[in-house]
Amino acid sequence: MNHENLTLHTDKYQINMMYAHWKNGTHNKRRVFEVFYRKNPFGGGYAIHAGLERVLQYLDQLHFDESDLAFLREQEENYDEAFLDELKDWKFNGTVRAVREGTIVFPNEPLIQIEARIFENQLIETAILNFTNYQTLIATKANRIKQVAPHDTLLEFGTRRAQEASAALWGARAAIIGGFHATSNMLAGKMFGIPTKGTHAHAFVQDSSNELDAFKAYAKALPDHVTLLVDTYDTLKSGVPNAIIVGKLLEEQGKTLKGIRLDSGDLAYLSKEARKMLDAAGLNYVKIVASNDLDEYTIHNLKSQGARIDIWGVGTKLITAEDSPSLGGVYKVVAKQENGEWEPTIKISGNPEKVSTPCRKKLYRIVNRRTGRAEADYLTDYDEVLDVNKTLKLFDPVHTYLQKVVTDFEAVELLELVYDQGHRVHKPLTLDEIKNYNEQQQSIFWEEYLRNLNPEKYPVDISQKLWDTRMQLIAKYSGK
Amino acid sequence: MNHENLTLHTDKYQINMMYAHWKNGTHNKRRVFEVFYRKNPFGGGYAIHAGLERVLQYLDQLHFDESDLAFLREQEENYDEAFLDELKDWKFNGTVRAVREGTIVFPNEPLIQIEARIFENQLIETAILNFTNYQTLIATKANRIKQVAPHDTLLEFGTRRAQEASAALWGARAAIIGGFHATSNMLAGKMFGIPTKGTHAHAFVQDSSNELDAFKAYAKALPDHVTLLVDTYDTLKSGVPNAIIVGKLLEEQGKTLKGIRLDSGDLAYLSKEARKMLDAAGLNYVKIVASNDLDEYTIHNLKSQGARIDIWGVGTKLITAEDSPSLGGVYKVVAKQENGEWEPTIKISGNPEKVSTPCRKKLYRIVNRRTGRAEADYLTDYDEVLDVNKTLKLFDPVHTYLQKVVTDFEAVELLELVYDQGHRVHKPLTLDEIKNYNEQQQSIFWEEYLRNLNPEKYPVDISQKLWDTRMQLIAKYSGK
Repeated sequence: MNHENLTLHTDKYQINMMYAHWKNGTHNKRRVFEVFYRKNPFGGGYAIHAGLERVLQYLDQLHFDESDLAFLREQEENYDEAFLDELKDWKFNGTVRAVREGTIVFPNEPLIQIEARIFENQLIETAILNFTNYQTLIATKANRIKQVAPHDTLLEFGTRRAQEASAALWGARAAIIGGFHATSNMLAGKMFGIPTKGTHAHAFVQDSSNELDAFKAYAKALPDHVTLLVDTYDTLKSGVPNAIIVGKLLEEQGKTLKGIRLDSGDLAYLSKEARKMLDAAGLNYVKIVASNDLDEYTIHNLKSQGARIDIWGVGTKLITAEDSPSLGGVYKVVAKQENGEWEPTIKISGNPEKVSTPCRKKLYRIVNRRTGRAEADYLTDYDEVLDVNKTLKLFDPVHTYLQKVVTDFEAVELLELVYDQGHRVHKPLTLDEIKNYNEQQQSIFWEEYLRNLNPEKYPVDISQKLWDTRMQLIAKYSGK
Repeated sequence: MNHENLTLHTDKYQINMMYAHWKNGTHNKRRVFEVFYRKNPFGGGYAIHAGLERVLQYLDQLHFDESDLAFLREQEENYDEAFLDELKDWKFNGTVRAVREGTIVFPNEPLIQIEARIFENQLIETAILNFTNYQTLIATKANRIKQVAPHDTLLEFGTRRAQEASAALWGARAAIIGGFHATSNMLAGKMFGIPTKGTHAHAFVQDSSNELDAFKAYAKALPDHVTLLVDTYDTLKSGVPNAIIVGKLLEEQGKTLKGIRLDSGDLAYLSKEARKMLDAAGLNYVKIVASNDLDEYTIHNLKSQGARIDIWGVGTKLITAEDSPSLGGVYKVVAKQENGEWEPTIKISGNPEKVSTPCRKKLYRIVNRRTGRAEADYLTDYDEVLDVNKTLKLFDPVHTYLQKVVTDFEAVELLELVYDQGHRVHKPLTLDEIKNYNEQQQSIFWEEYLRNLNPEKYPVDISQKLWDTRMQLIAKYSGK
C-alpha cells in the first residue's frame, strides 16, 4: 500500500495547470503553499495532525513511469511530447515544513508548508489533502473517544465498514496516534507495528453443536489468549455461565480466562450483571470487552450508567468518522517569487472566514513559563524574529479588541523542516514516539480548550506584520 | 493498488478462528457464507451492487508470503509452526457465486455466496465486506444523484476529501457504475479506463496579475479544452465577461470555449444570469459546470429553481457518502456440511430483523412477461426447481398474509458462478458493460420502487421451503 506509484493520484486539473504553466513558461516560478483547515471537526475545539508519514512516503516515491506517460499521451488534451519529457525526468525537489504527527492543531494554522516550483506544487495538492484530511480526522475522532475512557483499553475494530482498504490501514494507524492501543487489522499491524487484537466471532460458536463446546475448543487452541464472545444465544443465562465454566477449567491448568466480550443488548446492564457473576465465581481478574456501534457519546453514557467495561472495541463510527466524515483541509498559495523577490499573496472571498492569511509563516505555541500551559498559538512572517525576552501582545485576528499580554513565555516553533530541496530530512518517528508526543502535548493545554462538548476557543493569533500585510492586500484586491 | 498482497487485510479474530479450527481438526469442514445487507442506505429503496471485480482480484492474489508468515510468527498467540506451514502452501480454493456489478439489489438477498472450507471462509470475510460495503454504498449514492439529473453530465470530483487513496480510486469506479460519466482522478482513469476531466483552479487565476490574462494563458495552452473557472473575483462582473472575451477570441481561431465553471455563491441565480450573458454574446453552445458541496438534494433544489447547469462536479458528499457513510453489509453462514451432508444453519437474535434465512440460496428476479416489469425477487433453496410454467405464489416473509400470485413470468437467476473451485471463471466486464447493464436493469423497475424519497418497498420473498426451514430452525434453537 505504501510502495506503489501514486504519482497520478491527483486531479486532472493539476496536470492541466502544470501544462498551461509549462506552455506559458511560468512553471519554474517558486511558490509557497500551506495546508490548513478552517473549522474543527465534530464540533470540538481542536484536531490532531496525522498523515505526515504517508505524505513523506508519497513525496519520496513520486515519478512518472512509462505507463503513466503512456496514459497521459492518450488523453484528449493531446499534451506536447516535450511536456511528457519534462515529466519523465522529474523528481520532487521542494522544501517542506510541517507540524509533527500527533500535534494538537487548530483552525487556520499551517500544518504543512511547501516551497517548490509551481509545477510541482500543483501536482501534489490532491494527494496531500487526501491523506491529511482523512488521517487527521480519524486521529481526532480517536482522541475524542480516548477523552471519555482515558484509563481503559481502546481497540480499533472498523475494517469491514471502512471506506476501502487504505482507510482501514492508515485509519488504524491514525487511531493509534489519537490514543488507541491496538487494531484488529493484521495488515495494519504488519505495516505499522501496531499491536493486533482479536478473539472469535459468533460464527465460531454457531459452528459448534453448543456454546460450551465452542468455548472449550477455543480455549484448547489458544489457552493463553482466551476472550469469549458471550452473546450468541443468551448473555446472562448461557454465555457468561459457560465462560465461567471455561474460566475455572483454565484455572485448573494454571491458566487464566482473559476476558468476555459483549456485542449486543444493553451493555450497561449486561456488563454490571456479568461483572457480579464473574466476581462471585472468583474471576474478578477477567476483563469485560464491549463492542457494537460505539463512539464517544455511547461510551460516555455507558460510563455514566455505571457500566463495568474495561476494554472498548470501536468500529464503524471511528473508522468512518461517521458524524462528520470529511475534514475540509485546503491548500492555498501564500507567497510567490517574482523576479527573485518573494511577495505575499491572498485569497479574497465574499465569505470573510475564507479570506486567507498571506505570507510564508512561522507557527509558535506560546507556553506560559509559570503555569506550563499554552496561552495561544502565534503566527508570524517567516522573516520575523520573536524575542521571548520581550512582552508579547496578542490580539484576535477577527475581533482585534480581544487582546492579551504575555510575559515570561516560551515560544515553541511547530513547523519543522521535513523535506529539504527534494530530500527527506525527517527521520520516521515510531508510533510510540508520536503517541507520547501527543500525550505530552495534551498535558500543556487547559482542559477547557480540549473538552468534547462546547470547548473554549483556543486563540490562534497573528503578528502585527501579518495583520498589516493582510489588510494591505485586502485593500489592494478589493479595489480591483 | 490492485496488485499488492492483501492477504493480511483481515481481522485478527479470523486468523484466531482459523487457528482454533485447525487445532481442533474442524478446519476442512465446508461451509456456505452469504454476503447481504439488511437496510437500504440513504433512506432509499435499493442499492447497486459494486466491488465484485475488486473481490475477485483479491481472491486471485491471496497467498501468505514469507513476510506475512514472519509477522504471524511474532504474534503473542505463538501459533504452531505447522499451522504456518499450512498457510504457506495455501491458495483460495472456494466456489463463489455473485450478482453482477451494477445489479439493483435489495435487503436480505445474497450478493455474494461463498462455498469453501471454513478455514478459507473465515479469512476472507473482512476484506470482502470492506470492499463490497464501500463500493456498493458509493454506486448507490451516485445513482441517487443520477436520478435527479438524468440528462446531465456528472463528474466525480471527490479525491481530496475521500477517506484515503483506495476510497478515491475505487470510489471513482463505483460512481461510474452508478451512472457518473467521468472522474477528476487521473490514477482512477488509468486503472479503470474511466474518462478524466478537469480544467483549472483558483490558484491559476490568482497566480496571474489579472483574471483575463490567466484565462488567455490557459486558452493558449489548451485551446481545444477550455473551461474557465469564473468565481475567483466576481462571477458576473468579472469572471463571465472575461470568459466571454476569451470565447470570442477562440471563435476567431476557429475554436470554441467549452464551458465556464461556478464554484461558489448562489448557483441557481448565477447560472441563470451567466446563461443569459453567454447567450447574448452568441455563446449559447458554452456549457455551465457547477461544483461546491453538491449532492442529490442540492441538485434537485437547484433544478427546481430553474438553474441552468449542464454539468455537475460532485465531490465530498458523493465520495464519502456523507449522509450515511457506511453500509452494514454482513457475512453469515447459511449452510454447513457435516459427514458429507449439507445442513441449513440460522443465526437467531432477540431482534427479529436480524434472524437470518438459512440455506444456500438461489436468487431470482421475477419479471412479468406482459409488463416487462419486475414483480419481486424470490429466494429458493439451491436444490429447488422453479417452474416458470406454473403459477407462483409469493408471500411476504414477515407479514405472510401479504400475498400475490404471478403467472406468465420470467425468472432471471441473479447469482452467477464467478469462481469455481479456486479458479476465476468470470471474465472482467468493461465499465461500459456494467453501466449498460445497470441502465437496462433500471428500466425493468416501476419507478415507485427506485425513487429517492419514500419509495415503495420492493418485495423480496422466500419460497415455502425456505420459510419452513427457517421456522423449524427457529423452533429448534429457541428451545435451547
